[in-house]
Amino acid sequence: MADYDLHHHGDREVGDGLVDLAVNVRLPAPPEWLHAELAAALDDLAAYPSAVAATEAVAARHGRDVPDVLVTAGAAEAFTLLATALRPRRAVVVHPQFTEPEAALRAAGHAVGRVILSSSDGFVLRPVPEDADLVFVGNPTNPTSVLHPASAVRELVRPGRIVVVDEAFLDAVPGEPESLAGERIPGVVVVRSLTKTWGIAGLRAGYVLAPPEIVAVLKAVQPPWSVSTLAARAVVACSRPSALDEADKLAVRADHDREYLVNGLRSLGIEVAGQPRGPFVLVRIPGAAALRLRLRDAGYAVRRGDTFPGLDGDWLRIAVRDPSVTDGFLEAVRRLR
Amino acid sequence: MADYDLHHHGDREVGDGLVDLAVNVRLPAPPEWLHAELAAALDDLAAYPSAVAATEAVAARHGRDVPDVLVTAGAAEAFTLLATALRPRRAVVVHPQFTEPEAALRAAGHAVGRVILSSSDGFVLRPVPEDADLVFVGNPTNPTSVLHPASAVRELVRPGRIVVVDEAFLDAVPGEPESLAGERIPGVVVVRSLTKTWGIAGLRAGYVLAPPEIVAVLKAVQPPWSVSTLAARAVVACSRPSALDEADKLAVRADHDREYLVNGLRSLGIEVAGQPRGPFVLVRIPGAAALRLRLRDAGYAVRRGDTFPGLDGDWLRIAVRDPSVTDGFLEAVRRLR
Repeated sequence: MADYDLHHHGDREVGDGLVDLAVNVRLPAPPEWLHAELAAALDDLAAYPSAVAATEAVAARHGRDVPDVLVTAGAAEAFTLLATALRPRRAVVVHPQFTEPEAALRAAGHAVGRVILSSSDGFVLRPVPEDADLVFVGNPTNPTSVLHPASAVRELVRPGRIVVVDEAFLDAVPGEPESLAGERIPGVVVVRSLTKTWGIAGLRAGYVLAPPEIVAVLKAVQPPWSVSTLAARAVVACSRPSALDEADKLAVRADHDREYLVNGLRSLGIEVAGQPRGPFVLVRIPGAAALRLRLRDAGYAVRRGDTFPGLDGDWLRIAVRDPSVTDGFLEAVRRLR
Repeated sequence: MADYDLHHHGDREVGDGLVDLAVNVRLPAPPEWLHAELAAALDDLAAYPSAVAATEAVAARHGRDVPDVLVTAGAAEAFTLLATALRPRRAVVVHPQFTEPEAALRAAGHAVGRVILSSSDGFVLRPVPEDADLVFVGNPTNPTSVLHPASAVRELVRPGRIVVVDEAFLDAVPGEPESLAGERIPGVVVVRSLTKTWGIAGLRAGYVLAPPEIVAVLKAVQPPWSVSTLAARAVVACSRPSALDEADKLAVRADHDREYLVNGLRSLGIEVAGQPRGPFVLVRIPGAAALRLRLRDAGYAVRRGDTFPGLDGDWLRIAVRDPSVTDGFLEAVRRLR
């Protein structure tokens, strides 16, 4: 079933001079206050890093206990730790979704089953096999941009099952609705990322929220000092109320910008999947694979859909950008279709 | 055999206001040119990191092919990748040495055998069990500071056996003698770190040099984007001839500083282990465990020896510092013994 290139990501589609609608990072660089904190941290690099303050900051931000938190070198490390530490008898990934969880499970030697949601109903969350003891689901889901109700995610919970909810994009949804980050639910693991909202994909900063016995198991296989001094500093800075407030304002703006993009696409008669809630949208255009190449020639990079299990060459993922960028993009689509 | 605290490291012994002779990082901060490069890289953090340039820089620096190189988030990640990816029937760690390789092997579920070198002959490298198919050895070894001849390390090589040589401190030895970094030897894996020489422990930057089939196996279990943008930038910068030249000058100075420390210790009648070649020395002092606490009260942090398999409470590891720092330390030792 290694039938998709699970290691393909939007960053591979970006090229010199291309307008980037392939990568889901909102800011072109970290904001000034964060940049200043990171620059100050450069003076402290001789010391080994410590994640203590970052762990406390995350716990406070989500109203969790400190033993519920594991700070990680990005969400990607979290998926690797889960794949390495857990010994599922039946792992299931709900697709289409970010492909690294499945890739990490396979790299760790686990068989992986797939539950494929359907575009016909807007990628609504469906039941998974009753005997699945490890389930991965995204919320909001990359690449569909669909936000599942928290109640639907909670319905996946079973005794003896671990449900991993990838909330890497939830801080890009105003008010962070449908999140399970603030609740300690037996078997529920929430993965978060700072990368998308704060323009720090290069820094590797994320975290896991889970019951303490799961955190302990993950921590046991995490390399020591895995979270760098700068990443730890960013986690502290981005967990402050002022940062959360700013993130929410950015999310509100992204909501407007997405509406602008969706309206523009639909006015061109293009099918937008589901009810998008994240900072990207998934579209189906017959012949999208060829259109993507023409868009590249015209200076626009979008994310191919065919490397996501459950999608094919007719799908593209498009990042939400400012209306001025979106205008140029929509005009190119109109011209090149 | 989890009889030692394998996760204890020098950074835990450092405290506010203490003169740090516990951590083996030479510079108190990265040098100005490196600081400037890292500061410039902060503007590029929105993009996902790429290790391509860093991988090429390491290959060029050691005269290896690009497929022989895996850049890692510090040497610590390299040990975790080795423990996760390899399936040894009999893993053996040569002690006393850095404890993370054994900790990583155990965390991955492997049984670990120990070959304990003897202080009576200066920790000379001894044969390991013939059926060992995975062997970890340090060169120069932390905490003994002993540099094994390359020929002795090479004698460990067997068909079907992987020998991991931790050369994390070899760039602190002038001329980098006895290194296997430049040779592609079947089954030989060399681990390197930038942390110690360049004052960037907080950044997590290291790499593996190995035959390409081993690199491929490690890469398969490495989280994507594991090496941050700043770490990758540091690897490029520190692989340049000008940096290597500066590192060698630092190493020559460390040699002098170590001689000063060793002479001072011996003039106090203190036993210094082996023939130290790294930026730290191992000493045996009856009652060292209690002396260490008295030294803390006097403002000096040194590294306890009793968490290293093969050592006990009579051993201390002392970092090489400038003669002015060493003078104060020696005076404190003289007073408090």
